Amino acid sequence: MNLKPLADRVIIKMVEAEETTKSGIILTGAAKEKPEVAEVIAVGPGGMVDGKEVVMTVKVGDKVITSKYSGAQVKVDGEEYTIVRQGDILAIVE
Amino acid sequence: MNLKPLADRVIIKMVEAEETTKSGIILTGAAKEKPEVAEVIAVGPGGMVDGKEVVMTVKVGDKVITSKYSGAQVKVDGEEYTIVRQGDILAIVE
Amino acid sequence: MNLKPLADRVIIKMVEAEETTKSGIILTGAAKEKPEVAEVIAVGPGGMVDGKEVVMTVKVGDKVITSKYSGAQVKVDGEEYTIVRQGDILAIVE
Amino acid sequence: MNLKPLADRVIIKMVEAEETTKSGIILTGAAKEKPEVAEVIAVGPGGMVDGKEVVMTVKVGDKVITSKYSGAQVKVDGEEYTIVRQGDILAIVE
Amino acid sequence: MNLKPLADRVIIKMVEAEETTKSGIILTGAAKEKPEVAEVIAVGPGGMVDGKEVVMTVKVGDKVITSKYSGAQVKVDGEEYTIVRQGDILAIVE
Amino acid sequence: MNLKPLADRVIIKMVEAEETTKSGIILTGAAKEKPEVAEVIAVGPGGMVDGKEVVMTVKVGDKVITSKYSGAQVKVDGEEYTIVRQGDILAIVE
Amino acid sequence: MNLKPLADRVIIKMVEAEETTKSGIILTGAAKEKPEVAEVIAVGPGGMVDGKEVVMTVKVGDKVITSKYSGAQVKVDGEEYTIVRQGDILAIVE
Repeated sequence: MNLKPLADRVIIKMVEAEETTKSGIILTGAAKEKPEVAEVIAVGPGGMVDGKEVVMTVKVGDKVITSKYSGAQVKVDGEEYTIVRQGDILAIVE
Repeated sequence: MNLKPLADRVIIKMVEAEETTKSGIILTGAAKEKPEVAEVIAVGPGGMVDGKEVVMTVKVGDKVITSKYSGAQVKVDGEEYTIVRQGDILAIVE
Repeated sequence: MNLKPLADRVIIKMVEAEETTKSGIILTGAAKEKPEVAEVIAVGPGGMVDGKEVVMTVKVGDKVITSKYSGAQVKVDGEEYTIVRQGDILAIVE
Repeated sequence: MNLKPLADRVIIKMVEAEETTKSGIILTGAAKEKPEVAEVIAVGPGGMVDGKEVVMTVKVGDKVITSKYSGAQVKVDGEEYTIVRQGDILAIVE
Repeated sequence: MNLKPLADRVIIKMVEAEETTKSGIILTGAAKEKPEVAEVIAVGPGGMVDGKEVVMTVKVGDKVITSKYSGAQVKVDGEEYTIVRQGDILAIVE
Repeated sequence: MNLKPLADRVIIKMVEAEETTKSGIILTGAAKEKPEVAEVIAVGPGGMVDGKEVVMTVKVGDKVITSKYSGAQVKVDGEEYTIVRQGDILAIVE
Repeated sequence: MNLKPLADRVIIKMVEAEETTKSGIILTGAAKEKPEVAEVIAVGPGGMVDGKEVVMTVKVGDKVITSKYSGAQVKVDGEEYTIVRQGDILAIVE
């Protein structure tokens, strides 16, 4: 994996449907959308972001739920990733 | 329950219709919408959020009323939860 | 009454039409809307709200005028209340 | 008069058309609207408003010009008043 | 002249067409609008405005260019004035 | 030239088409618009602008590229100028 | 290359399609848009930007991924560049 996020950004990878079923977590909403459980792949350094100190609290390997629609999608070596700000991560699945 | 909210987020679970009737609280509005009394299931750690110190004042087990439409819905092990920011909680029902 | 407002929120109850007439206060506007004189039923603790110190200056029993359309409506034990932020209260009627 | 404005709010009363003509001040604009010269009837205490210290500089009896469309209208004992924030007052007429 | 601007407001008076031609300054834009060279008639005291210290740098008699559409128009004793914030003044014509 | 910009404003003059070609810089975009290389004609004093200290870093004679659509156009003695904030200047051409 | 970015701006150059394929990175999204991997060509000095200290963390030669649609395009000596704020850079490709 060769993407290094900047500032308060976090690179996540959507968990496959099988895993989603296994962990029993499905996002529901107005529209039936794809589940948004993802695994953290890389974490930015945090620090001053827009003039505010941001401490990174998620770490590589965490399973997380993010706000729908947040983040930018990117494909690296055939794998799709999403880049979000840490503030778009709602909860960690334990 | 295996969701750990981040920052100032709170995981709540809508109280069943029966309970709502029992406690006698019904939200009214322009549109007749579902009651928004919920029970707090998990509370984030608070701390610096968007550069501002947030102290969490709700606790697990509190019955709360939230702003309508606020929060993201998520289904865990067949149960539906909502993830809101503490600032979206209007009042505690005692 | 069993609602405890959070932060800078205030629970108010619209004053009945009779009382409104008695106190002689009627809100006018583009559209003829219901008067917005209300009685304060409960006051949040104030404190840090969005990173700013808020001191609560209204108190239970105050008759107040609020911005139209502000607040969320809620029905408790058959009574309708409105939950507003203190900053939405324009004036106290004495 | 029994309205006590909160925070940085000011209660004003539009000056009658006769007085407006006498003082020779007429607001003009895209649409011919009613003059917006008003007399200050009550002044809030100022202090911290949205986290910023506000010092009240207008006083009861001042004749003022306000931004058009600003403020909420209210009728007390048959008289119409407008409640504005001090920051919506553009100038004092002397 | 009997208007005393508040805070960071400045009262200006559009310079007559003849003068505009004389000084050779004409504002151009998408629409051919009236020139926006104006003379400063009165200057507010500055000080804390929206929580920020504002020092007034224009003075009575300055010829200034303002942002188009900025300000409120007012007619005093048959003369039309515009009330702008100092921040809407782009440059002084010398 | 008799325009003295205020605060963080900078007066610039679009460089003629010939010069643009010579320097080889052409702005491209959704719509083919006029190049936006300009020469700095006058620089405001900087200082506190909207409560923030601004240090002016461009100087008279700099060739600059600005955000499209930014600034107000003004004609002085038959010459057209644009007044922008320093923050709208993207880069200096050297 | 003769463009010197100001403040927190960064000049980047989209990487050619061949290189994009070679590095195996393709941006995906609602619409199939051009990949947004770019090389950093010049980096502004950072410092106080909108009243906030910005430290530049990207450097010339970095391959970066930016938010789609961010930045202004400019053509210098026949080459197209994009000028973005550092905050619009999501990640560095290593």
